[in-house]
Amino acid sequence: MERLPGFRDFYPEPLPQSDLWSADLRQYIFDQWRELARRYAFREYDGPPLEPLELFTTKSGEEIVGQLYNFDDKGKRAIALRAEMTPTLARMAAAHERGYKKPIKWFAIPQLFRYERQQKGRLREHFQFNADIIGENSPAADAELIALLIDTLRSFGLTQEDFVIRLSSRNAWQEFYGRHSKDESKAYEFYQIIDKLERDNPVESEAKLAKLGITMTSVAEFIQAAHPTPQLAEVMTDLAIRGLSGYVKVDYNVIRGLAYYTGIVFEAFDRKGDFRAIAGGGRYDHLVHLISGGKVTLAAIGFGMGDVVLTELLKERGLVPKLQVKLDAFCIIEDETLREASVSLVQSLREARFAVEYPLGPAKPEKQFKRAMELNPGYTIKLERASHGEIVVRFKNLRTREEKVLNPDEAVGGLRAN
Amino acid sequence: MERLPGFRDFYPEPLPQSDLWSADLRQYIFDQWRELARRYAFREYDGPPLEPLELFTTKSGEEIVGQLYNFDDKGKRAIALRAEMTPTLARMAAAHERGYKKPIKWFAIPQLFRYERQQKGRLREHFQFNADIIGENSPAADAELIALLIDTLRSFGLTQEDFVIRLSSRNAWQEFYGRHSKDESKAYEFYQIIDKLERDNPVESEAKLAKLGITMTSVAEFIQAAHPTPQLAEVMTDLAIRGLSGYVKVDYNVIRGLAYYTGIVFEAFDRKGDFRAIAGGGRYDHLVHLISGGKVTLAAIGFGMGDVVLTELLKERGLVPKLQVKLDAFCIIEDETLREASVSLVQSLREARFAVEYPLGPAKPEKQFKRAMELNPGYTIKLERASHGEIVVRFKNLRTREEKVLNPDEAVGGLRAN
Repeated sequence: MERLPGFRDFYPEPLPQSDLWSADLRQYIFDQWRELARRYAFREYDGPPLEPLELFTTKSGEEIVGQLYNFDDKGKRAIALRAEMTPTLARMAAAHERGYKKPIKWFAIPQLFRYERQQKGRLREHFQFNADIIGENSPAADAELIALLIDTLRSFGLTQEDFVIRLSSRNAWQEFYGRHSKDESKAYEFYQIIDKLERDNPVESEAKLAKLGITMTSVAEFIQAAHPTPQLAEVMTDLAIRGLSGYVKVDYNVIRGLAYYTGIVFEAFDRKGDFRAIAGGGRYDHLVHLISGGKVTLAAIGFGMGDVVLTELLKERGLVPKLQVKLDAFCIIEDETLREASVSLVQSLREARFAVEYPLGPAKPEKQFKRAMELNPGYTIKLERASHGEIVVRFKNLRTREEKVLNPDEAVGGLRAN
Repeated sequence: MERLPGFRDFYPEPLPQSDLWSADLRQYIFDQWRELARRYAFREYDGPPLEPLELFTTKSGEEIVGQLYNFDDKGKRAIALRAEMTPTLARMAAAHERGYKKPIKWFAIPQLFRYERQQKGRLREHFQFNADIIGENSPAADAELIALLIDTLRSFGLTQEDFVIRLSSRNAWQEFYGRHSKDESKAYEFYQIIDKLERDNPVESEAKLAKLGITMTSVAEFIQAAHPTPQLAEVMTDLAIRGLSGYVKVDYNVIRGLAYYTGIVFEAFDRKGDFRAIAGGGRYDHLVHLISGGKVTLAAIGFGMGDVVLTELLKERGLVPKLQVKLDAFCIIEDETLREASVSLVQSLREARFAVEYPLGPAKPEKQFKRAMELNPGYTIKLERASHGEIVVRFKNLRTREEKVLNPDEAVGGLRAN
């Protein structure tokens, strides 16, 4: 029985095969994400992994709709596995915005799904760090969010030699389009062409632009000039104050594929250009209004960072930390008549919050010691009968090789002292 | 736009309405689960939330199949959202069992789904703490797993006045059935009747049993005698050694609904009987063999504990901890000419791992202070111009009300000292 194509199993370290996904590496990434969110005072939320299909179809544009993992449930409801978190966040924020002071700074780590034609190695799910600031439309919010993105990537050991955030402006492109075309209904089509400009065949892109009455030259000149909007200039200044200038540049090649962006947009790329975007986001000041049916209006900006590209990048740069099992003590049972006393000792150590393992049945001491070594404990402990028949605990510190012998009721203190 | 019925949104504390689900309470529960798994040396794994339908249909029995959240995907594949974790675990363990030393002690915190007819307040998803020991068939493994279950519930502040684990034995019931009936094909039907005995109408149960040629009297006597099997006796002794006798009793009313159990089965109940089972599990020594198509044979035992019943119980017993926002410092900006220096200070504090918030735009000092109080910081900090024009940082400890003034480059040390 096989798992579905495009889905992942996560196994504990040490992995028996290097092509398996590591549950411990995943947890390391999630822990870093939560730690940086904490420092920046973002609070965690979550929504359902399933949403009504319509939450996505009208709001996000063709980019995401074509890849939705959707189906009809037994009640004939049109359902989609969530492909992005922003519509859920907009729904949740709109429903209870009065209960939270603005700006709302929230983050989530959802698993997201898409259903593309299956390609080798192409996944149908990933986990994504989503952070958003809602209810604040100033460039200070844009800078705060982008600083979080930069510091999150830095927390993994990535430097300004490794990645850069390309900052752009959807509204600068809106103005550009307005100057070159009067057909507002084709604007999103235009953004899609720009979004794919770096990947698509230039001749084909030029032909597509020509159909909209726009020349490739005018587009190329606009990108070349890279003239920052006043908002972009403010964001750059704010990031410079934080000492983060080396991590950002204005680059109008970026426009983002989603329909709902309204202002600044950005993507994080590795400098070598070996990977797809590491993260991306932007301002979406109308989405809460749209999703709440006009009941709530809130400015918003957010980003998403996926675990798959990040994992590939960390592996390529040698930045995956040693993910070792950690155990405080392994209790060796050499004398089976001391098993009961050993199990009782293990229980008392665990109740004192120590991580302790022991053999569930009789086994040779060498085999027990080998098993202990695999689990990387700080100590081995072993009950022994001392000269007058009383039971004592022998502690062996596996780093220093030092040994000590204590009474069983001193064992908790004995581990704590180290 | 509403979320799907039976699904939950999780909001950050403090909750604006008491009927919302708390993301912080969920995280508290997950943290406790992970902490107890760590102490007992269980390692985390995870699988996909979607699996091929057939992984569940032939293995688990009617109990779960009737409630599967299943559908056909765009590729006409029969898919189910996972309703339980055990078949996924069996699949994963079978695929890589040679890479891991036995016993394998693994845990996961999956979100699980079911599609029942919608009843008021009845959920279609929950999160479940799953812990399993694979590759060890001795009662010592049963005791180790049940001790983890007990200690996990105790870690939430629940005592032996609050809950009890009812231990039973599927094989004792198998023997009972073998003594009373020769029709092996009806055995699972019999277990289903026993499983529902406490909930169903006694007259109806008696009639159903009669059809299988079994009297209610013989069943009642068997339950009443509660004669422990040798395995159950060993488990009780092991738990007594750990000082956990007060948390368990033999009770043959328990049999568990899933088809694949083979030995000891158990359920955790609140003593008052106000809630559905808090947790349940048992031994399933044939499932890995079945799911691996006969390639791998591994004994196994596991339990699952859901977050919904647990949350209800903790609330009812007043055991939900105060889930406060925690911030190291809030930086007040009274003098807008000091905004740049303030933002720079915030950045340096965050780089030193402190959680720091500041106002994104100009605001009255009272409003800033009010905002700060909501976020419960250890300190407020504020840049000021001192007598000779130099910039200093005023720290105010909000617990002790003490104040101190430092140079900006001493600020990190100033927070660290406290």
